Order: sequence, then C-alpha cells, then structure tokens
Amino acid sequence: MRFASDNTSGAAPEIMAAIVKANEGYERSYGADAAMGRVTALVREIFEAPEAVVHLVATGTAANALAIATHVQPWDAVFCHQHAHIAEDECNAPEFYSGAKLVLVPGDHGKITPETLSAALATTGDSGVHGVQRGMLSLTTVTEAGTVYTASEIATLAALAKAKGLPCHLDGARFANALVTGNASPAELTWRAGVDVLSLGGTKNGCLGVEAVILFNPARAWEFELRRKRGGHLSSKNRFLSAQMEAYLTDGLWLRLAARANAMGQRLARGLKDRGATVPDAPANMLFPEWAIGQHERLETAGAHYYRLPAPEGRERARLVASWSTTETDVDRFLDAF
Amino acid sequence: MRFASDNTSGAAPEIMAAIVKANEGYERSYGADAAMGRVTALVREIFEAPEAVVHLVATGTAANALAIATHVQPWDAVFCHQHAHIAEDECNAPEFYSGAKLVLVPGDHGKITPETLSAALATTGDSGVHGVQRGMLSLTTVTEAGTVYTASEIATLAALAKAKGLPCHLDGARFANALVTGNASPAELTWRAGVDVLSLGGTKNGCLGVEAVILFNPARAWEFELRRKRGGHLSSKNRFLSAQMEAYLTDGLWLRLAARANAMGQRLARGLKDRGATVPDAPANMLFPEWAIGQHERLETAGAHYYRLPAPEGRERARLVASWSTTETDVDRFLDAF
Amino acid sequence: MRFASDNTSGAAPEIMAAIVKANEGYERSYGADAAMGRVTALVREIFEAPEAVVHLVATGTAANALAIATHVQPWDAVFCHQHAHIAEDECNAPEFYSGAKLVLVPGDHGKITPETLSAALATTGDSGVHGVQRGMLSLTTVTEAGTVYTASEIATLAALAKAKGLPCHLDGARFANALVTGNASPAELTWRAGVDVLSLGGTKNGCLGVEAVILFNPARAWEFELRRKRGGHLSSKNRFLSAQMEAYLTDGLWLRLAARANAMGQRLARGLKDRGATVPDAPANMLFPEWAIGQHERLETAGAHYYRLPAPEGRERARLVASWSTTETDVDRFLDAF
Amino acid sequence: MRFASDNTSGAAPEIMAAIVKANEGYERSYGADAAMGRVTALVREIFEAPEAVVHLVATGTAANALAIATHVQPWDAVFCHQHAHIAEDECNAPEFYSGAKLVLVPGDHGKITPETLSAALATTGDSGVHGVQRGMLSLTTVTEAGTVYTASEIATLAALAKAKGLPCHLDGARFANALVTGNASPAELTWRAGVDVLSLGGTKNGCLGVEAVILFNPARAWEFELRRKRGGHLSSKNRFLSAQMEAYLTDGLWLRLAARANAMGQRLARGLKDRGATVPDAPANMLFPEWAIGQHERLETAGAHYYRLPAPEGRERARLVASWSTTETDVDRFLDAF
Repeated sequence: MRFASDNTSGAAPEIMAAIVKANEGYERSYGADAAMGRVTALVREIFEAPEAVVHLVATGTAANALAIATHVQPWDAVFCHQHAHIAEDECNAPEFYSGAKLVLVPGDHGKITPETLSAALATTGDSGVHGVQRGMLSLTTVTEAGTVYTASEIATLAALAKAKGLPCHLDGARFANALVTGNASPAELTWRAGVDVLSLGGTKNGCLGVEAVILFNPARAWEFELRRKRGGHLSSKNRFLSAQMEAYLTDGLWLRLAARANAMGQRLARGLKDRGATVPDAPANMLFPEWAIGQHERLETAGAHYYRLPAPEGRERARLVASWSTTETDVDRFLDAF
Repeated sequence: MRFASDNTSGAAPEIMAAIVKANEGYERSYGADAAMGRVTALVREIFEAPEAVVHLVATGTAANALAIATHVQPWDAVFCHQHAHIAEDECNAPEFYSGAKLVLVPGDHGKITPETLSAALATTGDSGVHGVQRGMLSLTTVTEAGTVYTASEIATLAALAKAKGLPCHLDGARFANALVTGNASPAELTWRAGVDVLSLGGTKNGCLGVEAVILFNPARAWEFELRRKRGGHLSSKNRFLSAQMEAYLTDGLWLRLAARANAMGQRLARGLKDRGATVPDAPANMLFPEWAIGQHERLETAGAHYYRLPAPEGRERARLVASWSTTETDVDRFLDAF
Repeated sequence: MRFASDNTSGAAPEIMAAIVKANEGYERSYGADAAMGRVTALVREIFEAPEAVVHLVATGTAANALAIATHVQPWDAVFCHQHAHIAEDECNAPEFYSGAKLVLVPGDHGKITPETLSAALATTGDSGVHGVQRGMLSLTTVTEAGTVYTASEIATLAALAKAKGLPCHLDGARFANALVTGNASPAELTWRAGVDVLSLGGTKNGCLGVEAVILFNPARAWEFELRRKRGGHLSSKNRFLSAQMEAYLTDGLWLRLAARANAMGQRLARGLKDRGATVPDAPANMLFPEWAIGQHERLETAGAHYYRLPAPEGRERARLVASWSTTETDVDRFLDAF
Repeated sequence: MRFASDNTSGAAPEIMAAIVKANEGYERSYGADAAMGRVTALVREIFEAPEAVVHLVATGTAANALAIATHVQPWDAVFCHQHAHIAEDECNAPEFYSGAKLVLVPGDHGKITPETLSAALATTGDSGVHGVQRGMLSLTTVTEAGTVYTASEIATLAALAKAKGLPCHLDGARFANALVTGNASPAELTWRAGVDVLSLGGTKNGCLGVEAVILFNPARAWEFELRRKRGGHLSSKNRFLSAQMEAYLTDGLWLRLAARANAMGQRLARGLKDRGATVPDAPANMLFPEWAIGQHERLETAGAHYYRLPAPEGRERARLVASWSTTETDVDRFLDAF
C-alpha cells in the first residue's frame, strides 16, 4: 500500500537485468559506450525522428533544467503552469541553470489553456530592455494534477509559442504514463505537435535512475553536452544509464510498465468512487481524491502510505500514485481499509 | 589491456550484488532510505568522525563542485594545483556552482608545496574590494600526476590555509588508492590533517556511479542539501546510491579494490622499468611512463588502450591507469607487447 | 508638459552646483572621499540610525539588486508585489545578482496586504529541499500604482516577514515622495517599521544619477561592498555620487523637491477630477487617471508626453508623473488641453 | 603631487561644462537622448566604423565585464594577460557576468606575446567536453605595466585568436593615452587590427564617470543592451553620460587630455632617470620606477601620493600615474623632493 510516489518503487526486473548485463567487461566512458548508440537509434525509431539527439542524465530535475537552459537566454521568460514541477519542486534549478525567470500561467486541472497562455504571452516581453524577453514554453504531461494533454492541445499551445518565435519543452517525467492513456504516437505528442525538446522520464517508471533529454532539433546538441558536463551531470560510467534506457525502450517495456501503473491507478479511482470519494478525472497513475474526514487515520493504521493534502472543512484530500510495481492486492487492501 | 582510465572498468561483484539486493520492495526516496543511514554510520566509524554529515551524488564533478560551493563565496579564490581536475577537467563546474575563481598553484609531480601555496596566499586577497578574497584550499590525492600526499603534507598545507581562515577541501576521487599506499588512517588523511570536506570517490574504484561528500564540519550541511537539489543532484531513488556506498565501505571492500588496482599499477611500473622505460614515482594505480619512440604503435597493434601524452622529441609518453578489475594477465600481456 | 517619467527631468540647481563644486582638486577614489563620510553622517542623523552603513550606486536597479542579493541565498524566495519594479522592470537583475526567485504577491492599488502576504508565506518554503526557501520581503513605496504605505502598514508586513525570520527590503526609488505625503519620520517608515535595507532614490527626484543603499543592520556591509564591486557598481570617482547625495540630503532639499513634485501631481489630479476624469487615489507625484476616449489625441496634439495604458472599451488610461521641475504652467497647460 | 591614480583627478572643464549644459530642459531617458545619437556618430567617424554600435556605462569594470560576457559562453576561456585588470582588479566581475574562466597568459612588461598566446591557445580547449572551450582574447592597452601595444602587435595577437575562431576585446581604460603615443589611428589600433569590441575609457582621462563600449560588429548589440539592463548599468538619465562622452570626443579633447597626462608622465620619467632611478620604458602616463631605499619616506614627507610596490632588498618601487590635470609644478616638486 505504498502510494506516496512512483519513485518509492524499485526497478523493473528487465531493467535490473540490463544493468547486470552491462557490467560485463570494459566500456568506453562519458557516453561513448556502444549501448548509448543503441539508445539513440531506439529513440529515433520510436519517435520517428531520424535526426534527434539523445543524452542521458540521472535525475529529472537535471533533465528539465538542462533542456530549458539550452534553449533560453538569462534575460528570458519561461512560461509554465503555476504548479509545474519546474516551478514548485526543483529548488530554483531551472533558474540556476538558465538564469531565466519562470512566468507562471494559471489553468485548471494542472493544464495551461490557450487563453491563459495567450494572456501571459501578451503581458510579458513587450517592455523593451526593461522586462524579461519571451523565451520558451514548458509543458508537463502527465501534469501535476494527474491529467494529460492531448496531442492537439499540445499542438495548439506550442503553436501559440511558435507564433512568438518560442521553442517548446515538454517535461515528460511520466511521459509513458501519458502516452498510454491515448492513441497518439510518441511523435504526435512531441515534435509533430511542436515540442523541441523532451525530458523523457525513466526513473519513476521502473528504472533505477535515468532520464533522456531528446533534442528534436539538433542545432544546440553540443551546447547541451557542455552544459551537462558543466553541471556535473555527465556520467563517466554512462553505460549504466544507457543500459537502463535501452532496456526501457526495447520491445515496449516502457509502455507495459506505464500501462500497469495506470491500470492500478484507475482501479483505485473506481474503487474510491464506488465507496463515495470524489475523484477528479485523472487517466494515468496519479489521483487526487477527496473524501469525508476520518479516512486518513484509518488508512494510516492499515499501513497505507501517501501524501495528505489541504482540504476544505470536514473533508480530507490525498495524492495517491500507483507505480509499475503496484499490485491488485495493494489496491484492494487500500480499498478495503477505506 | 584497458588502461585508459579506471572508469572504463565495470562495477565490482559485491557492489552489483548490493544494487540487486537494494531493489527489493519499496523504499523512501530522496535520501530518506534506510541504507543511507547505514552509510552515514559507516563513514562516521571509518573516519572516526561521529558528527560528519554524508551526502551522495552520482558524479565526481558534482561532488567537487558542490563541496567547494558550500564553503566559499562568489567573490572568493579557491587555491588548487595548476593541473587539478577541478581546474582542467570539469568544464567550469566549480565556477558555475560557486562563482569563485580558481587560483592555480604550481608544483612538481602534481603537488602543491608549502612554498607555492604560501606564495599564492601572499599575492591573492589583499587588494581590498578590488580583487578576489581568499576563500578555500582544494587538494587532490591521488594527484593528477599519480602521486599522493602524506598526511603530514596535507596537514602542513591545510595549516597554511587555516592560518588565513580558509577551509580545506580534498578531492578524493581516488582516495582509496591513496589511502592504501601508506599507513595513515582515513581520519589522519582528512579531518585530523585539517580537511573540512572530502569528495570520496566510489565510481573509479568499483562502483557503478557514486561519490560521497563528507562534511566533517556539519555547520553547512543544510546548505549542502539545498545546493545539491538546486543542482539537480538529489537522486529520487537514492537507495541505489546508498547501496553502492554501503557495500563499498563494508568489510574493507573499498580498500581491497584499491589495493588490487595499485598492485597492478605497480606491477606495470616495475615491468616497464625493467624494459627500459622511464617511470616517474607514482605509488598508486596511475602511471606516466616515458619511452623511446615506436611503442605506441606496437602497443596499439597488440590491443592496448591508454592515453598518449605529448613527449620530447624522439620519445613517447603515456597515461596508464589500472583498476580494481585489471588482471595480472592484462599487465603481462601489455609488458609482453612492449 | 513632460509627464512620461520623473527621470526625464534634469538635476536640481543645488545638485548641479554640488557636482561642480566637488570637481575641485584631487580626491581619493572608490568611496574613500571626504564627502562620502558626510553622506553617511547625514543618513545616520536623518534616519536616527547611528550604525547604518551607506553605499552609493548610480542606478536604482543596481541598488535594489544588490540590496536584495546581500540578504538572501540563491535558493530563496523574495516576496514582492506582483507589479513591483523588481519583478517587471529590471530585466531579471534581482535574480541575476541574488539567484533567488521572486514570488509575486497580489494586492490592489500596488500594495501587498497582510492577507496576501500571509497566504504567500504559507504556501512557499515548506517543502523541504524541493522548493525554494523563504528568503526576504521586498516592499516599494511610492508603489507602482502611485500609492504609499503608511508606517504602520510597513510595520505589519515586516512583522509577518520577521515572524518567519525574513529581513525586509524597501525599494524607495521615490522614497522622498512617499515620505512627504505623511507625518511619519524617515526612521518610522524604515528601520522602526522593520526595514533592514533601503534603496533610497535620488535620480528621479532631482539628482543626475545616484541611489543610496542604506543597511540599517551593518552585519553584511562588507559583503555588500564586495557584491557592488563584483557587479561593476563601485565608482572610481565616487566623489561625484557623494556630492549629489550630500546636497540632496542637506537642509531638506530632498523633501522640498519631492513636495514640489507631489504638489504638481495633486494639482493635476484635482484638475482632471474637476474635468470629469476618474483619478484613483495617489497622494504623491504619479497618477493613473482614466477618461473618455479622445483625450489622448488631443493631448498629444497639444504637446503632452506621457504613457498610455490599456483601458476598458470606450475609455483611455494614462500614467502621468510630475517631477521636481514640473511647473504650475505645465500642469495648467495640460489641463487646458484636456 | 597626486600620483596614486588618474582617477583621483576631477573632470576637465570642458566635460563639466557639457554636464551643466546637458541639464537644460527635459530629455528622453534610458539612452534615447539626442546626445547619445551624436556620441554614436562621433565614434563612427573617429573610428571609421560606420556600423559600430556604442553604449555607455558608468564604470570600467562594467564596460569590460559586459563586453566580454556578450562575446563568450559560460563554458569558455577568456585569454588575458596574467596581470590584466580583468584578472586582478575586478573582483570576479568578468566571471560573474560571463560565467567564463580567465586563462592567464604570461608576458613581460604587461604584454602578451605571440609565443605565450600560442602556447595558451594550444593547451586550452582541446579536451572535448571536459575542459573549457576557447572563447575570447582580451588585451589591454595601456597595459598594467604602463606599456602599449602597437597596432601591429594587436593585429598579430588578434590574428592568432581569429585563427581559432575567437573574437578579440580591447580594454582601453586608458585607450587615449595609448593612442597618442604612436601614429596609428583609432581604427588601426582596433577593428582593423581585429578588435571586435573596445572598452573606451573616459573616467580616468578627464570625465566624471563614463566608459563607452564600442561593438564594431553589431551582431550582438541587442544582447549587449539586455545584459547592460540586467546588470543594472542602464542609466535612466543617460544624457549625463552622453554629454560627457560627446564633449570628450569632440574636437580632439580626449587626445589633448591624454597628451597632457603622457607629457607629464614622461617629464617625470626623465627627471627620475636623471636622478638615478631605474625607470622601465613606459611611453604613456603610468610609470613603475625603482630607486634606492629611503625615497618613500622623503617623498611622503614632502606630500607625494602614490602606490608603493614590493621591491628587491635595498630598493624601493613605486607606481606613479600622471593625469590630464597634473601640472609641471606637480612633477617638478616631486622631482625636487626626490
């Protein structure tokens, strides 16, 4: 009954096996390992992007901060949702790496809308040298509210950004979980929709610790490498990052792991609704249910782990996250305790 | 015959076993895992430092940059050897994290001397607000020249720094290799000699990718944590870092691995000397031999990997690094090819 | 009819005379000039702050950015009004100098309220290492909406900050204009109300270009000096800054200049109200009137200079700023053209 | 007898008159003043550079730091003389603004040579992502040793840089003093020799406080403006900077002031040599004489001001700087006291 975060789960057996296998013999360091070439080939095939450049780092914060810094100037604004991970959970890492200012864009259910983005674009960046310049759009899917953007929504937002000349970043710490909720392809959710750079998460979805930064436009690839090294994020034994990512992307493992996590999330959602909880729509593996007071204590006593959130008088709210390793038994025990 | 770097070797079996074992079940994230507590206890015991604070990161550059940034101000000077890794091989990461300036101190055989340090301390930091202030001393052992500092040498240099009020950092990417060359204890080589913060390497000596930053003075421990997160170096599944470091420090594994690497380095040195090469004294696992022209081609043909260095007319120079996984056969084949 | 900004006016005759006089003979550079000592003495007397430390810079952005950077850490949040000059008009200078994040606090009429500040303090800084830490409060008076804070309002807001351990900065680019609107003393509006550091403007109120940063708490005075030099804001011929500030603060010149600017602002406000314009309360020298469509063209034709602002359908809005050099004739010609 | 620095002198009467005159009436702020246009026209004419972009700041450190930051990346190396002002006297401002590392190039008499520069270029920037990249060359004339570069020397050094693709900055805090020592034109000493950006000093040579940054290549002009604002160096009442620079460059005033300073410097040099001092060649206004012990006390008693420098046993060394306002009487009194 561990629903605090998908990062409390371990690594999937296939990933662990790949790590063990990667340990054989000697290998070139700093990203020149053979597996890294295979990772690039896999990404290019899966994303239908034959020129994409791929680099690996060990944390999601590093992936986001480096991806953003590579596309903006220190006097720029990065437009992101007001509750984006880069705004609330990365201790100024994006600002540290880029120098830029985050301009917070409101929106219900964790999502920026064309209206809120247009308003932010209209009121930022037109005061000459005095204010920040418009720099970049950063979206997140799965969002912090557990919702997902459709390919068409991403395309609309990225088009608004592009109309002002801005590139678009997608924080996909849970990209696989978002992807498997719909019928859009990886390409459709990213570069075909106008995404220039993707943080593709592995850690939360069954890896030990690896994130890929995918530069669909290779123009700044060398700059990215320099920024990665300067940030201390170039791994000498990169083979252990490549091995994870290769296994993750091989034969659809990443999709199967995400599908399992989502299925457990939805099973939990249905069960909670059946038991009277209010469960806002969230199609992936992260739920924000609300229920009458008293459950927190009961669930904790039963051994459930999750985050409690502020709630209206007489109510309780929670963040529940299922992972690739969540079992039906876990879910059902939680529901029984409810 | 892979002597390019100890980071081309894989992980020791004990380390890999620990990673596999750490994968069982759920675990708290971001450093709150149980193994992290055990790592701290091990470090405190081994270094006889009951108040030391320990944090893990995945790369040596991150360890150094964060360790330094936590102890200086952006208008400070960090005194280091002119060929220190932080000066030549980290793409400005120490400057990026700290804002400080590296003041390069000369010295033969990769080592700062009391004379060169005194001279640098005397000519930096006394021009009021106009120049940089004196901020920190950073030493490295095993040095970039393969030599090691004795505890007494470190103590002398740290004392010169302390006389000016400066803390001392020790870049110990190959600390274990240095430690096993002498009789000084971990404490004697570090805090008893005046070292305030140590980058303790694991990656090059049989881990997959983990370095410990040991703050012997816990006053800035929270600042370190904030800097680590802001740099994107806080690992969500920290258990996989802790597991490596715990296994590494348990039952002297780190010392056995380093001793094996050093023994292979010394076997190589003896063999090369016997065959007429000039091999500067270097008691650990890294050699910088020089020989008559023609060997590079012969060795390469035989399948040897290593770095070629600039050499005087008619001569050739090399950097050869043995690792925990180097075998006697590797060495002897290299010598045979020579 | 130049109402675009008080920085389009020149220097008051007394200030210019002081500059000319300061030019006699040789003088020590970098702030060691005799006049600088007199400036410090004047500030200490006027602000009843015998330990205050005073440093001069040439621009308001430098004053604010340096004042803030000296009191926060790069992982901190600076709480400021959502339309504060530091947030909208300084091209990321506060972030550049401090590394910190600006947290935008809403509030009508350009003013933070205890409620909005409390809410911001409650939702920022409690997520451990993941989010920014609470760092500082920054207020502005005269505000960007032309309003002023009472001493009691400042004290209430600073107390909320202090309850969380946060220092308080006051952006007083138009501090003199705020001061002369009420009966509070300089001390009452600043350190007695909990202000730790004040940016005291001279440029907009009759100087050529000088701002004083007043550190009521001298603990970080040396750090301020280092930051000023590192930012390129230490003037070698500081005597020309001191001369301005000395003349400005001598015999109440700063108050007379501000009183004149405010009187012209209020004359304009009354005249506009009498002629049917809507003029929000703004007791100093900066007005944001609204009127029926058509005036912009008429006023421009008559030779009036000011900023046009977005307005509701059928209406027009303007920012009008009077300065120490605005005459009754200027005001009356504007009103006649209206 | 004030020979401590040319920045202890005041402003020339023509400059002060221009300031007073610039105070008439209203003027557009932030660099849109009419005089700024005239400054640009003057620079373009004098430097025969019809596309040059000119911006003014109040300090030399700001000019240098902004000029450099606009031309390099944070992972770059800036090659400069080991005793350059940017290396020793700006408290990390160049690093703060640019993020780059200064690589110190040796050379006698304050001058980089083709040999030392070639060596530095050869040993920096070829270690892939691990080390800094080659970014820029920064020269200084008049140098810190009082010497000057010929146009041909500058061209040779800039050509070495350009062969590696690097732009060249010239710190001309005393550019006028250098210019009048030879027959080269402003264009020949700068862009025709390969200089891309010049810090043209006014402050030390008779202005109150103004330096021009001249971008011979306008490609990064807008970036410069953003960096200037972000650094807090955009002056709202820019008219008072323009007025100084306009007067300075009009009718050769800058050259006359520099010629006077140099003449006094040379009179001093001759007098000292005649009296047995050792005076290294230094054709401008800054001398570094050495003499037998005992003079420091005598000169101080006589009222002379200057910097004492470290000297060999039994000897004394001094830095003596003449300025536009130094008189023959000043020099002769100094020599009499000697």
